Amino acid sequence: MMRRMNEDLWAVVPAGGAGTRLWPLSRAGAPKFLHDLGGTGRTLLQATRDRLAPLVGDQLLVVTGVAHADAVRAQLPEVPADHVVAEPSPRDSMAAIGLAAALVERRDPEALIGSFAADHVIADADAFRGCVAEAAAVARTGLLVTIGIEPDAPSTGFGYIRLRDRLDAFPTAHAVASFEEKPDAERAAAYVASGEYRWNAGMFVARASVLLDLLAAEHPDLAAGVRAIAAEPARMEDLWPGLTKIAIDHAVAEPAAAAGRVAVVPGAFGWEDIGDFEALTALLPDAAGVKVLGDEKAVISQDSTGLVVASGERTIAVLGMRDVVVVDTGDALLVTTTERAQDVKKIVETLKENGRTDLV
Amino acid sequence: MMRRMNEDLWAVVPAGGAGTRLWPLSRAGAPKFLHDLGGTGRTLLQATRDRLAPLVGDQLLVVTGVAHADAVRAQLPEVPADHVVAEPSPRDSMAAIGLAAALVERRDPEALIGSFAADHVIADADAFRGCVAEAAAVARTGLLVTIGIEPDAPSTGFGYIRLRDRLDAFPTAHAVASFEEKPDAERAAAYVASGEYRWNAGMFVARASVLLDLLAAEHPDLAAGVRAIAAEPARMEDLWPGLTKIAIDHAVAEPAAAAGRVAVVPGAFGWEDIGDFEALTALLPDAAGVKVLGDEKAVISQDSTGLVVASGERTIAVLGMRDVVVVDTGDALLVTTTERAQDVKKIVETLKENGRTDLV
Repeated sequence: MMRRMNEDLWAVVPAGGAGTRLWPLSRAGAPKFLHDLGGTGRTLLQATRDRLAPLVGDQLLVVTGVAHADAVRAQLPEVPADHVVAEPSPRDSMAAIGLAAALVERRDPEALIGSFAADHVIADADAFRGCVAEAAAVARTGLLVTIGIEPDAPSTGFGYIRLRDRLDAFPTAHAVASFEEKPDAERAAAYVASGEYRWNAGMFVARASVLLDLLAAEHPDLAAGVRAIAAEPARMEDLWPGLTKIAIDHAVAEPAAAAGRVAVVPGAFGWEDIGDFEALTALLPDAAGVKVLGDEKAVISQDSTGLVVASGERTIAVLGMRDVVVVDTGDALLVTTTERAQDVKKIVETLKENGRTDLV
Repeated sequence: MMRRMNEDLWAVVPAGGAGTRLWPLSRAGAPKFLHDLGGTGRTLLQATRDRLAPLVGDQLLVVTGVAHADAVRAQLPEVPADHVVAEPSPRDSMAAIGLAAALVERRDPEALIGSFAADHVIADADAFRGCVAEAAAVARTGLLVTIGIEPDAPSTGFGYIRLRDRLDAFPTAHAVASFEEKPDAERAAAYVASGEYRWNAGMFVARASVLLDLLAAEHPDLAAGVRAIAAEPARMEDLWPGLTKIAIDHAVAEPAAAAGRVAVVPGAFGWEDIGDFEALTALLPDAAGVKVLGDEKAVISQDSTGLVVASGERTIAVLGMRDVVVVDTGDALLVTTTERAQDVKKIVETLKENGRTDLV
């Protein structure tokens, strides 16, 4: 077998989050990373693994909820079963990625980890891997490196990364001035117009020990906790519930940026996080009538545009609808428009208020 | 038991027609008269029987397709089983009503029949029965009598009845000048503005022998055919397929009107034939959000108006839809708007072209 260029690199794939704006397709019991939302024949999780495999081989850890570990293993037969780490309960992204970092650190104190969500879509996998390879090279200098997506619109749905100077030793990397929260529309437009900002897609590459040492400086208990679990996995049940619930951005990335320890590799590879049905509709290839995810033969569309998700067993007829969203599953049906896609989470809230946790 | 006033009156209820504009609720296998479209707890067929029972007792014949005879008998336990007549195949309304007339004529040559479709909705049953009673009185003079609905809009969806002079011996009856086909919008407006027209709802009252003699004058084979089947029911299978396929309007009503043999009793009792989902939506009581036919608890509606037919077993969420029509059944789902309600039949045509006769 050919020696890989990045043999010190491990991929970490946090696979969590129900994606309530994609209800009833995405559920607590069947979150979006388990679905083939691109209509490609591979689920988002499988596509994430496929995209990373040329870089990391089987040096890939998935951290997921205990409820989904079996489904993840079933979808990823190429990944060794013990590379799927089951969290006893959700403790946010820092605990998940921190535990993975600690597991990698014990195997190889010099190893790098690159953390990439299980539910993103990337059009150009080669360009993506090129960015990760550059990020790995930068990370070997001891920095925390993020990949910042070239904005193609002034989105208010993402956080932003503010660039500082170029790092001369690398083709495209910059220092990071700061991480910025999701902006309002006016600020988003200014960010994009300036050319100095990139979207924060939550992708981080660092030496495992660097990440954990940065964490230890800010949240020593959390760093000690994940290292203790990695050293003695039997302590998971005891220690996990006491870990601080915090996102990696707040725990590590923002303070490290303030200390000048973060770099960014700009990325332009057709990235999409499919936050809602409007994004999913935009992602699917053009169609004469409605776009169909699932069984196209089950859908009859006349004078209509939008999206039909045909995940049930029935014939779906759509007549005279503009930008409609119809999501048909065995126990729940959603009818809305792409314009109202963000509000689907309100339906989920109503279901929870009504005690219908079986449906969410 | 009190002697009924109209003990010579038999009701005939033709129960046919799939109602393709109400697909997928109404099907060839489950036509609209078998459904509780009013949300009253009684199907249209049951409501028709309930409305007629005070007038005719069990002197009620239902003529329906052989495929629906069992369902009709199951829905009408009060009706003697042999009062449900099964047509071997559809031969249009004249054969159905003519056969019922011939059966009644054999029992009682002086008897009247009143024919009323199985799938109409009538708000004021007392007013309806008042009209039928007057029509029966007029029919006893040897005329063919129809009930003409007071138009509440210049509809292009119905045929019209043109009135002539009042019949002095009766409270409201008029002679009929002519029956007019469904008009265009301009003509419909003129009809309604004139005050001289009523909607043709296909309701006819006549002595059974008068109806059959009028038929014999125009279509002697058809009159002889239904009388032969009534005399010898075993000949049904042989004779029925050869009967002329024609509507009662063309076969009898129009020529009899031209001959001055038809009267009309004007009716204003809240009549609705529920031709499509727009009419069904209008019929249902006002609601804060969407109107629901079926299990209201299964429907979550936010910022929406229109109709949800929840005949399946699932939760249905509707978000941000104006005048939407969602019809959810076990094997088929329709999403459209009240504005496009007339075009639902095009979906059915497409299904037939695609060979999906299982769904129509």
